[in-house]
Amino acid sequence: MTSIGDNRLTDGARFDVVGIGNALVDVIAHASDKFLADHDLIKGRMDLVDTDRAVSLYQALGSAVEMSGGSAANTMCGIASFGGTAAYVGKVTDDELGRAFGHDLLAVGVQFRPGDHRNEIPTGRCIIVVTPDAERTMNTYLGASSMLSVDDLDDDAIAAGKVLYMEGYLYDRDEAKTAFRHAAAVAHKAGRLVSLTLSDSFCVGRHRDDFRSLVSDEVDLLFGNETELIALYETDTFEQAVAELRQHCQMAAVTIGAKGSIIVTGDELIEVPAVPVRKVIDTTGAGDLYAAGFLHGMTVGKPIDECAYLGSLAAAEVISHVGPRPLVELRTLVG
Amino acid sequence: MTSIGDNRLTDGARFDVVGIGNALVDVIAHASDKFLADHDLIKGRMDLVDTDRAVSLYQALGSAVEMSGGSAANTMCGIASFGGTAAYVGKVTDDELGRAFGHDLLAVGVQFRPGDHRNEIPTGRCIIVVTPDAERTMNTYLGASSMLSVDDLDDDAIAAGKVLYMEGYLYDRDEAKTAFRHAAAVAHKAGRLVSLTLSDSFCVGRHRDDFRSLVSDEVDLLFGNETELIALYETDTFEQAVAELRQHCQMAAVTIGAKGSIIVTGDELIEVPAVPVRKVIDTTGAGDLYAAGFLHGMTVGKPIDECAYLGSLAAAEVISHVGPRPLVELRTLVG
Repeated sequence: MTSIGDNRLTDGARFDVVGIGNALVDVIAHASDKFLADHDLIKGRMDLVDTDRAVSLYQALGSAVEMSGGSAANTMCGIASFGGTAAYVGKVTDDELGRAFGHDLLAVGVQFRPGDHRNEIPTGRCIIVVTPDAERTMNTYLGASSMLSVDDLDDDAIAAGKVLYMEGYLYDRDEAKTAFRHAAAVAHKAGRLVSLTLSDSFCVGRHRDDFRSLVSDEVDLLFGNETELIALYETDTFEQAVAELRQHCQMAAVTIGAKGSIIVTGDELIEVPAVPVRKVIDTTGAGDLYAAGFLHGMTVGKPIDECAYLGSLAAAEVISHVGPRPLVELRTLVG
Repeated sequence: MTSIGDNRLTDGARFDVVGIGNALVDVIAHASDKFLADHDLIKGRMDLVDTDRAVSLYQALGSAVEMSGGSAANTMCGIASFGGTAAYVGKVTDDELGRAFGHDLLAVGVQFRPGDHRNEIPTGRCIIVVTPDAERTMNTYLGASSMLSVDDLDDDAIAAGKVLYMEGYLYDRDEAKTAFRHAAAVAHKAGRLVSLTLSDSFCVGRHRDDFRSLVSDEVDLLFGNETELIALYETDTFEQAVAELRQHCQMAAVTIGAKGSIIVTGDELIEVPAVPVRKVIDTTGAGDLYAAGFLHGMTVGKPIDECAYLGSLAAAEVISHVGPRPLVELRTLVG
């Protein structure tokens, strides 16, 4: 793996991290476990829904709050909140939600490359049901976000980011897969680091072979949780998945829920505990902000265990309130 | 004044309260006092802004959350949250924000009468800047909300509500003034109670004579704060304003900030303390929810001091979190 200390990685870089993902506005509402059962929702899962299903779920839900979301976009906001520089590539339409999405990135200092926004379908949205245990169950109407193709990429921006960060959620259409391959090639040609988050075990299951070859061919740093890693390599245990991973990827940061995270390198397993939270309110964004902390640590040259600690710190902040992005400047939390 | 115990008031009523107001989606962001100064904003005030000013303020603000708002709409949600029945008349356009606004009313059980929503201009929005002291400064782009006219009223619904509740903010255009007069006449003809909230001392100042004659001719129960009452009667002191008020209106519920409220009747002044709050987070909706508690108490036949207590209780809930509507069922807070 290219080390973050390499001159090539930082030479001429204008961004610490450039993210690519599904640009979504979150529609967040609280509901009971019974609501999940009544509407055939599986807790903690992200399901893709069509317009009709999105409309009927929304109608059934109580009053909601709209906040910009999108996994990689949340991560880029986390980078900026730590004081880093970030750019984000994601596709919205020039409608009310699309404009709000763009505003909320620019407002925290993330440069936004929306690609072509003259789309026939509206900006995507993610209907998030938060149950009393703070778990979030997501129903994503992709809208314009899933139309991202190579034409929407900004090669100059990608080449100018120390790290490229790609979101597995987007990896559902052939055009997006092509775009990921293209972006990774651009980043590697410029001597940059390529990272990927697996996002969702069901998404991994739908595209296992493609994910495996992408990881093997292009990914220097992999993010995911235990379930996603096991889904990727179809193993019985986490240890077996780690053994597989080591053959294909140089480093992985694996979150293990309330216990924290495990960093997998070629010869080490480094366990870093979670940062305690007084009360978990809404787990939306936990993985996204973990990645933000980890990546920020890497881009400022911290040792790996400190990178993981910064990830835990950012995740702890975001799960302590409703919404997928930090409410305080994360840089102020760093001791 | 028609007493709530009157048979005429409750005969054939389908709603406890029918509200009329500016239908707005709140765009809420946190900012410093310096932000207010830099953008010529006066803390605590509601200013009407045009499209250009709305756009430039929004661009200057940090990341924002969108939540349905609108003063009288917040009040109707409070009524429903107490377990009462409410309907709301307000004008939105059939766009994303308009649909979200309608959803959020229906989601809590408030019947929504949007009038004609084929408007040329978008749904109105209120850009709310919350400073670290929890005060909110509002900049309202009225959009479709201000186009409400007699044609948008649902006379059957108004005649079927025990109490009509009208929002002073709307009282800025001649069409709205005509609509208020019409609605009040419909309500009184059906034997119902007519209430009005003054909303804003600057709005009162702009239309003082019209407000005075409306209060004198049609209003049975007036809501407002000290400043608004003094603005209405152009007196030096609150006591002088109360003396004026008693000549024109049978009852007023006057909020006095953190101290609670004073109920003014023909021969009494009843002071009811505020319900303490551990930490005030955002004062948006305080007056709206006070009115909800008071009106709910009246429609279920409570004595006046208990009505005011329910108002204080609802206000305390809403100022303890971001957003202008209750996050818990208010009925569960009633001992």
